[in-house]
Amino acid sequence: MAKDVLYLKIAKIITEQIQSETLQFGDRLPSLRSAQKLYNVSLNTIKLAYMELESRSLVESRPKFGYFVSQTSKRKLALPSVIKIKESGLEKPPQDLIDKVFGTISHPDLTQFALGIPGKSFLPLAKLKKSMLNVVKNKNDSGTNLEPAQGNENLRREMAKWALVLEGKITEDDLVITSGAMNAIYHCLMAVTKPGDSVAVESPVYFGILQAIHLLGLKAVEIPTHPIYGIDLNSLKKVLPKISACCFVTNFNNPLGFQMPDENKKELVKLITEYNIPLIEDDLYGNLYFGTERPKPCKFYDEADLVMWVGSVSKTLAPGYRVGWVAPGQFKDKIIRQKLVQTVCSPSFYSDVITDFLEHGRYDHHLRMFRNKLYSNYLQIQKAVANYFPDNTKVSEPKGGFMLWLELDKRICTEDLYDEAFSKKISFAPGRMFSQHNQYTNCMRLNYALEWTDRVESDLEKLGKMIKNSI
Amino acid sequence: MAKDVLYLKIAKIITEQIQSETLQFGDRLPSLRSAQKLYNVSLNTIKLAYMELESRSLVESRPKFGYFVSQTSKRKLALPSVIKIKESGLEKPPQDLIDKVFGTISHPDLTQFALGIPGKSFLPLAKLKKSMLNVVKNKNDSGTNLEPAQGNENLRREMAKWALVLEGKITEDDLVITSGAMNAIYHCLMAVTKPGDSVAVESPVYFGILQAIHLLGLKAVEIPTHPIYGIDLNSLKKVLPKISACCFVTNFNNPLGFQMPDENKKELVKLITEYNIPLIEDDLYGNLYFGTERPKPCKFYDEADLVMWVGSVSKTLAPGYRVGWVAPGQFKDKIIRQKLVQTVCSPSFYSDVITDFLEHGRYDHHLRMFRNKLYSNYLQIQKAVANYFPDNTKVSEPKGGFMLWLELDKRICTEDLYDEAFSKKISFAPGRMFSQHNQYTNCMRLNYALEWTDRVESDLEKLGKMIKNSI
Repeated sequence: MAKDVLYLKIAKIITEQIQSETLQFGDRLPSLRSAQKLYNVSLNTIKLAYMELESRSLVESRPKFGYFVSQTSKRKLALPSVIKIKESGLEKPPQDLIDKVFGTISHPDLTQFALGIPGKSFLPLAKLKKSMLNVVKNKNDSGTNLEPAQGNENLRREMAKWALVLEGKITEDDLVITSGAMNAIYHCLMAVTKPGDSVAVESPVYFGILQAIHLLGLKAVEIPTHPIYGIDLNSLKKVLPKISACCFVTNFNNPLGFQMPDENKKELVKLITEYNIPLIEDDLYGNLYFGTERPKPCKFYDEADLVMWVGSVSKTLAPGYRVGWVAPGQFKDKIIRQKLVQTVCSPSFYSDVITDFLEHGRYDHHLRMFRNKLYSNYLQIQKAVANYFPDNTKVSEPKGGFMLWLELDKRICTEDLYDEAFSKKISFAPGRMFSQHNQYTNCMRLNYALEWTDRVESDLEKLGKMIKNSI
Repeated sequence: MAKDVLYLKIAKIITEQIQSETLQFGDRLPSLRSAQKLYNVSLNTIKLAYMELESRSLVESRPKFGYFVSQTSKRKLALPSVIKIKESGLEKPPQDLIDKVFGTISHPDLTQFALGIPGKSFLPLAKLKKSMLNVVKNKNDSGTNLEPAQGNENLRREMAKWALVLEGKITEDDLVITSGAMNAIYHCLMAVTKPGDSVAVESPVYFGILQAIHLLGLKAVEIPTHPIYGIDLNSLKKVLPKISACCFVTNFNNPLGFQMPDENKKELVKLITEYNIPLIEDDLYGNLYFGTERPKPCKFYDEADLVMWVGSVSKTLAPGYRVGWVAPGQFKDKIIRQKLVQTVCSPSFYSDVITDFLEHGRYDHHLRMFRNKLYSNYLQIQKAVANYFPDNTKVSEPKGGFMLWLELDKRICTEDLYDEAFSKKISFAPGRMFSQHNQYTNCMRLNYALEWTDRVESDLEKLGKMIKNSI
């Protein structure tokens, strides 16, 4: 029993360090080997100690990366509230604000918390270039041939292989290649609605989805959404008889970060099946999980072929490639026809590059590194917000992806704050961008997929000060 | 005067050879140097003789390629008729037929007169590959950066330079890059109409335009169209008060081949300006002229910024690149926004490749070769049709591009003929594909941008026999 006592003793020491904040939220524990030397015990004893801490939710392990203080039991800041959605009579589409924020995308010297794309240092640029060269060398037609309207067959095959999470439920024949996930969503909406129809969305909602809905002459119905559980199914149930489609980001939601629990996904699929309402499931963040395995999409539970499962490489590999896809279930033929009429086909090059990258087994390795970096950044930004922002700041608890959602004091207008921050070369996405009802005006979304430099840290400190000063 | 007499003598000999059909329509005259030896005269005398023949419209010169028998004064076959358009009550969209014909695109051993794309041997594959390699080498971001929604700035600059025909009326700022010309047309239609609106189109009309119109919930109004002069302006005038847009292929029309005369273009622009109706001008064949210079588009005469000028490299360089553009006049901002919502931006690679190709001055050289080959093929196919098809065959007289339109005996159903031809590995586009009113059932479109082999020649002979046998 000496050994048992020993590992519990070490666990107790570390627990006290965490409680006294000697070890803080997000800190990395010493490596197993360092700790072994530090405590002068066997490697196994240290392992047992760390596992004990993990079982108490005090630390989290990241495979190949180490153990981090997670301290969920002593979370300092509250979760954002689920708000009552304003009536649709009060529409104020946030186009002006979106234009303003994205007008600064190419601004050179800005700390970009506003964008929904990962920073350069997260992307495998050198390996992508290798794949580009491979493709050019092997392209006898110099790219002049038309692709099938459904999309590059090799890419579809690789993507179907990669959809392990569906446990073999789709093949290359079930997929359609699109120009990124937004293009897939646009095609899905177009396939299952006609102008004037209504579409249920989360609230807060990714503004790109709102824009697509409005462009097609549709109405968005915002549904209250919980920062941990996702869409409120009771609220959804009430509007189901009046809508033509649902469009949700079910895993590592943008902007809320939640991973909809499996039971909720099952229940959602049951509901849409009952009402025969198609669900556009935007699952483009699904591979960026912090947990131990990729979460299932609703598509996994879909027996009626009503779920249109959307993905892309824009968030994980290459935003500029515009390579996305959809498994559109029963609406496949309609979507292929739409694509044929609108663009004839996709250009082949980046489809080939992604195929080459996947065929060389580079995606798995890249994703593992990427997830570890993202999780580390997530812990950093949580800690920074807890340290620098006012105590009444409410903050989301993303289970993956790279978006943090903050709800500030009611007196704060993040649109005004945006101007102030911008003058100090800091950019973020103000909350009003994420609703059509002039809501979330005291909220903001922060992208944490950026290289974590001293400047990033100090910019968050500055942002915190601005907020404190404006109350 | 001895010299004068000599060149007229030679001209007389050749004229007699043409009249006796020793030299036939489409034949190439001996080169200047060969003829000099043949007739044992000076080079200048031969030049004068050929110019004399040209002035009598018996031959046509193709710079750097030689002189060809054109014999327009003795044209054997009549022009296709301008038909009265059936009432819109009788709609029968040709989707079934389009699917059938294009379902065979990748059929290996087919002589493809059906496609609207040039054969491989017409495309500068090696030089495109050079540009591809250049682009990969210089791409520091490995293509991961997002492009501006308006499109690659370098490509827009090159395209604006290339739009010499507009005499400086557009700059890179006036252009939006799209995923091919069809995508540009789709965006233009979307920008200036709402579901239920009507759009005027030529009849026969390129089926892609009909499909886009129907996909957007619009109605197509087919206007009678002359095989030499294009759209009938009087008929158009009558419907102008009832339509929301016009969509015409003004130069080397698909399928009729006409180049709308300048006076008609001016009159058309005057009409649409008077009624304030946008004109989508699909000018993607404009650089493939048989004459001495590139024809002006309507855009050149457009003072009100109502003409949306569409182009692409799909017909001249690389169908698979899906690189097109539009100068959308007053609708530019709307189109950029639509593109942003639907696809975020275009992928950069093929835009860069085309830019590199243009920057190296390769386009001009390529187009000159391409036009010469096309003209030579045009003469070949005219001759083949005159030789092998029944005498009552009516045939268009394209002034550029690579489409020939045939009107056969009223008793011929080209849809039935298609099946018979297909069984003999010959494909063409049956006329019904080019109208929504179950018309042109005795017509067909032939693509002549294919390598002119003995098999092509003998397949046209076979096709002629099938037609003769089915009357």
